[in-house]
Amino acid sequence: MRILGIDPGSSATGYGVVEFAGGKLHHVTHGVLRARRGEALASRLANIHAGVLAVVGEHGADIAVVERVFVASNPRSALVLGQARGAALAALATSGLEVAELSAREVKKAVAGTGAAGKAQVQDMVMRLLELAARPPTDAADALAVAICQAHAGRLAGLGVSRRRRSLRSSLAASRLLREKS
Amino acid sequence: MRILGIDPGSSATGYGVVEFAGGKLHHVTHGVLRARRGEALASRLANIHAGVLAVVGEHGADIAVVERVFVASNPRSALVLGQARGAALAALATSGLEVAELSAREVKKAVAGTGAAGKAQVQDMVMRLLELAARPPTDAADALAVAICQAHAGRLAGLGVSRRRRSLRSSLAASRLLREKS
Repeated sequence: MRILGIDPGSSATGYGVVEFAGGKLHHVTHGVLRARRGEALASRLANIHAGVLAVVGEHGADIAVVERVFVASNPRSALVLGQARGAALAALATSGLEVAELSAREVKKAVAGTGAAGKAQVQDMVMRLLELAARPPTDAADALAVAICQAHAGRLAGLGVSRRRRSLRSSLAASRLLREKS
Repeated sequence: MRILGIDPGSSATGYGVVEFAGGKLHHVTHGVLRARRGEALASRLANIHAGVLAVVGEHGADIAVVERVFVASNPRSALVLGQARGAALAALATSGLEVAELSAREVKKAVAGTGAAGKAQVQDMVMRLLELAARPPTDAADALAVAICQAHAGRLAGLGVSRRRRSLRSSLAASRLLREKS
């Protein structure tokens, strides 16, 4: 079961791929798609779209997952975030992936044990859980964290690695459960 | 000079193509990309992206133009609008088009004579200006209106049809001017 986490943003979009196999999580890849300074909006968005397509093409995934947005701080930042999300989500669906959404609180709780964890805490825990040699950049750490949380949601639903289809369906069900609870 | 106007929205994205030739505006095409009822968000966004690519592929354009968003009514609707915009703008840049932005007020003023024009007034004026046999649907009318306004902005800058490159640059400059004034 390979899970792609995406953390979309206007200037930096993090991505991370983990694999849940043999009852254990494995790190596959992570990185950040960064906009060039002064790059036009539409061009940034096209690069997010192309970058997400390339990650799926290179590493593959059984499911994608993003953080759910509850309330952005203001309409302007919601619009900017929405544009980056729109480009990324369009690319995920074009790649044929189902997209699950998990709340930031659940992601932090799954990774760091508390929904109130800070950025650095998430980076540290992602590094430990995936046995990485170095701290991933914050945007990539957030993307890996959401992928890890999605893997946990599947595991909590009592899933084996061999049952891909059931696993996929059940982790979607689990993520819906998390969403309804939050 | 062929201009593609886009009016992105989560459930309906309007598009309209006009050509400014021989000192006159000509209608090329218009339509609305509609989401299916109950369609998942990422799939809707992928269809907006694919639909915009298809319109550019079929009809071509020298420039694209969208309405500029000033302040959305609330963060939730700004996020939803942003996602649709993100998918559409990514497709426009992927198609190699520059994307101009014009304020809703300027668009209404250029098409209907007043920045306070209503939806029906914009539909009627678009129908008359482009000599259409019937009123276009509101989303398509808004897309045609923004394309017409972009053509006017070019014309006001004293541009001829034969000077494509200068025309393109100058109408971009005109649109920047409009944006700075608004």
